[in-house]
Amino acid sequence: MTSTIAKINLLKTSTQEAWLHQALANLDLILLDHSHCERKAAGAALNFMFRYPSYAPLVRKLTAIAQEELEHFEQVNQWLDRRGIPLAPLTPPPYGATLKTHVRPPEPVRLLDSLLMTALIEARSHERLGLLGEHCPEPELAKFYRSLMASEARHYGVYWVLADTYFERNVIEQRLDELATVESDILSNLHPEPRIHS
Amino acid sequence: MTSTIAKINLLKTSTQEAWLHQALANLDLILLDHSHCERKAAGAALNFMFRYPSYAPLVRKLTAIAQEELEHFEQVNQWLDRRGIPLAPLTPPPYGATLKTHVRPPEPVRLLDSLLMTALIEARSHERLGLLGEHCPEPELAKFYRSLMASEARHYGVYWVLADTYFERNVIEQRLDELATVESDILSNLHPEPRIHS
Repeated sequence: MTSTIAKINLLKTSTQEAWLHQALANLDLILLDHSHCERKAAGAALNFMFRYPSYAPLVRKLTAIAQEELEHFEQVNQWLDRRGIPLAPLTPPPYGATLKTHVRPPEPVRLLDSLLMTALIEARSHERLGLLGEHCPEPELAKFYRSLMASEARHYGVYWVLADTYFERNVIEQRLDELATVESDILSNLHPEPRIHS
Repeated sequence: MTSTIAKINLLKTSTQEAWLHQALANLDLILLDHSHCERKAAGAALNFMFRYPSYAPLVRKLTAIAQEELEHFEQVNQWLDRRGIPLAPLTPPPYGATLKTHVRPPEPVRLLDSLLMTALIEARSHERLGLLGEHCPEPELAKFYRSLMASEARHYGVYWVLADTYFERNVIEQRLDELATVESDILSNLHPEPRIHS
């Protein structure tokens, strides 16, 4: 794909060109899904804070992330408003639910898997918003996507740093390798409905 | 009670003096519980946004509230940090769970009851933080409580306005009257563990 963001750190494979074509042909739907993604990202940060209320570094860092995701949610909703797209429910792609089945239930690996899974989701969002920022034919919207990219990169960095705070480096790297393979496999067949993670 | 905030709008009865004595004798515990309350308030706002994703006025107003609650959560956590109180789980008082049993499950009354219940919780927080702002013997901490009061008042106003956006005024008033009675009844016996809503 003609992209300067060939491959983001954590990700095993780059997004296929078919996704970009699908997304560019459905910009309104992608914006609506993006709104849902930002709300879900805020919800994910908050869920960690509810589940691990005494993990001070986690609570402190994810409070800031939740605030930023809500800010992005508000910004995406302003874009929807300007384009006359009403807020509406949207069936999610299988991406998130499939990833979640790979989170091992017992602690402490549940925390490890959840942090790495969230890091991967943020890394993929970062890559795909970057592609939209480069290829979106509407200059203002492209600029908006580029403005979000820096934060998304910070976000997946924070989830990685939190994993590194609570777990051994070699344990993290092995599990990240496994989950990154799962993540790339899920996206290897383009989901027919246009979504950020189709 | 010697208070200029004798009775807040929505509430049926004022907080009894016994609560203030209990709280002032346990300022550290009250701060820790307050941290949990702010996180739960952010979570409550976000839950509404997840449950009613296409209700634009609700989504817009509660995005702002969730952001503000997270800001307060962060501020309370800084107070904990300064006082050397570690973040820790805390058993909640029966207040929230008991109130929730009065939310009728079917829509649309579920939304009405949830909005009014949350308005009542915010109104009670407003009243009690106000009491701490007046009576806390530590001037800096008292000032902090007073600084939060204005927001808390706005918050219960927002939940009331949202009820007013989606329901008839007379329906709201009747249900508010019922739930406010429940709310006051729950607090009529002081919970033995010091909490914001003991």
